[in-house]
Amino acid sequence: MDFDAVKNYLLALQDHIVEALQRADGKHFIHDSWQRPEGGGGTSCVLEEGNVLERGGVNFSHVMGDKLPPSASAGRPELAGRSFEATGLSLVLHPRNPYAPTVHMNIRCFRAFNKSIVAQDLQPKQGAEEALAQTAQQVRQARTDESNAVAGVKTAADIWWFGGGMDLTPYYGFEEDAVHFHRTCREALAPFGAELHPRFKQWCDEYFYLKHRKEPRGVGGIFFDDFNELGFENCFALVQGVGDSFLQAYLPILQRRRDTAYTERERDFQAYRRGRYVEFNLVFDRGTLFGLQSGGRTESILMSLPPSVKWRYDWQPEANSAEAKLYRDFLIGKDWLN
Amino acid sequence: MDFDAVKNYLLALQDHIVEALQRADGKHFIHDSWQRPEGGGGTSCVLEEGNVLERGGVNFSHVMGDKLPPSASAGRPELAGRSFEATGLSLVLHPRNPYAPTVHMNIRCFRAFNKSIVAQDLQPKQGAEEALAQTAQQVRQARTDESNAVAGVKTAADIWWFGGGMDLTPYYGFEEDAVHFHRTCREALAPFGAELHPRFKQWCDEYFYLKHRKEPRGVGGIFFDDFNELGFENCFALVQGVGDSFLQAYLPILQRRRDTAYTERERDFQAYRRGRYVEFNLVFDRGTLFGLQSGGRTESILMSLPPSVKWRYDWQPEANSAEAKLYRDFLIGKDWLN
Repeated sequence: MDFDAVKNYLLALQDHIVEALQRADGKHFIHDSWQRPEGGGGTSCVLEEGNVLERGGVNFSHVMGDKLPPSASAGRPELAGRSFEATGLSLVLHPRNPYAPTVHMNIRCFRAFNKSIVAQDLQPKQGAEEALAQTAQQVRQARTDESNAVAGVKTAADIWWFGGGMDLTPYYGFEEDAVHFHRTCREALAPFGAELHPRFKQWCDEYFYLKHRKEPRGVGGIFFDDFNELGFENCFALVQGVGDSFLQAYLPILQRRRDTAYTERERDFQAYRRGRYVEFNLVFDRGTLFGLQSGGRTESILMSLPPSVKWRYDWQPEANSAEAKLYRDFLIGKDWLN
Repeated sequence: MDFDAVKNYLLALQDHIVEALQRADGKHFIHDSWQRPEGGGGTSCVLEEGNVLERGGVNFSHVMGDKLPPSASAGRPELAGRSFEATGLSLVLHPRNPYAPTVHMNIRCFRAFNKSIVAQDLQPKQGAEEALAQTAQQVRQARTDESNAVAGVKTAADIWWFGGGMDLTPYYGFEEDAVHFHRTCREALAPFGAELHPRFKQWCDEYFYLKHRKEPRGVGGIFFDDFNELGFENCFALVQGVGDSFLQAYLPILQRRRDTAYTERERDFQAYRRGRYVEFNLVFDRGTLFGLQSGGRTESILMSLPPSVKWRYDWQPEANSAEAKLYRDFLIGKDWLN
């Protein structure tokens, strides 16, 4: 597998998305590069108090370490504790206008190295710098070993997988927005098999679900993880299809809603519903937990949290109000395309 | 052990604290009783948009179940999966004035029943109602068996423990407030041994720590868990000492700060810092996780979250500002009494 190609694609996608969002907003993102003491780093592109986006982050990272965190090995217990590298692009946009939905998109690629290559040489008593140098050397060694490996299959060299998806979280729902978003997702996946979209759509509904609220996070989209079943080239093409379709999936919705008139009432409901976003990301989200557990950069990880949020006790929308409609017609795990 | 006595004490303490806070605020708490499908229930007392308290909750609960959740058995793996009952009083107050600190107090009592009594009779295929009736019967049986049990020691009947404490989270720090709070905590514990306060103070500093921020939640207080080493009577007396001292620890501080003049700047900093409170409670807090994992009542559990919160990217206080002082002089795990 060509890990560098994935990394370069994600860096180019970050530039492309940031430029398009800047044109839409009229304000510029700041670019903030950081290094991780345990290895790797990233660049966070952040816009706050924009004309359209109240807060938005488009974050690239490439990290490595000598122990895969539990959040990343949950679905693959045989990999617990292996050395790894991971690269990802993660994006959350919180528009100011309550009629414009929040959106999230993520693409990530993991690779875990064969235990026997790494563990025997990394003695716990080594100094941190020496251990890091050795890890880097072993990463290079493992890459060299790749000619012996069959992509996507557990081999002596390593195993890899992709994850990602995108999902939409409206405060006031519009059927045409939900349909457009899901249709774009379906089109992005279509070249790789018609069965993928229903499967990734359902996975998204199951993943972005607030168990303690018995409530979906939004109207869904697509989600996939531990994905390597098509072989590396096809998997990489698939995530490129997803990444390349993001702007097409979201920008028309943002343009349609960004200038809708609103009052304090809608802003208040938006702030209340944003509380659910915080609850999901801090209690359930695998990416957030991976970041915090792997010593990730807190400010970049928590860039996903909304700029202003309200909690209030046991609040219920008035019957038949626009707010009640969100719960009744949109937060129901619906199939938007049939 | 007399579980009912603990429960009755906590109910009386809830009344007492709610009445005192109502006198301080001038507005009344709502009382909201709820039942839990899996057994037990509680009463949440809630005040929102008060004159002094922007949001406050004083929540009593008594719950039971046939499987102790992981968050409660983390420190006692031998109890994983046992049937249990738990009663607690949990309180978080978020004053509106940014010069008045947020405060948290909690007292809880757990008991886990002997596996052999319960597990063999609870067949997984039974209907939920029948299983619940059996659990209730076994709770009664286990209580009857108590004459054979030595308090605080693992026996054929059950084992029990207390947990709790209180901690203070200022937005703008005042040394006299921190000293008064810690001194009151020390006095509450003094009758039970001079070594307890330093131990519970340190435990609090370690527990209320945001690892991903490398930052204490506030100026601390006391925290204890899995506590039964003094025998039931003394442990119960200790938690009563803690509960009874809460108003004395906090009300003078609230009265001193509630009418301090403030501007949007202080409110803004308060909203930003409240984000840390959310992060701690949703990512780390054992009580929150226990509640959410045990099918607790979400609105009562998340009553601890602040009413309005802001996140902003990589914000740092201006050097030598009042906001910088909080980090420099207060969020440092200091010994306030020596």
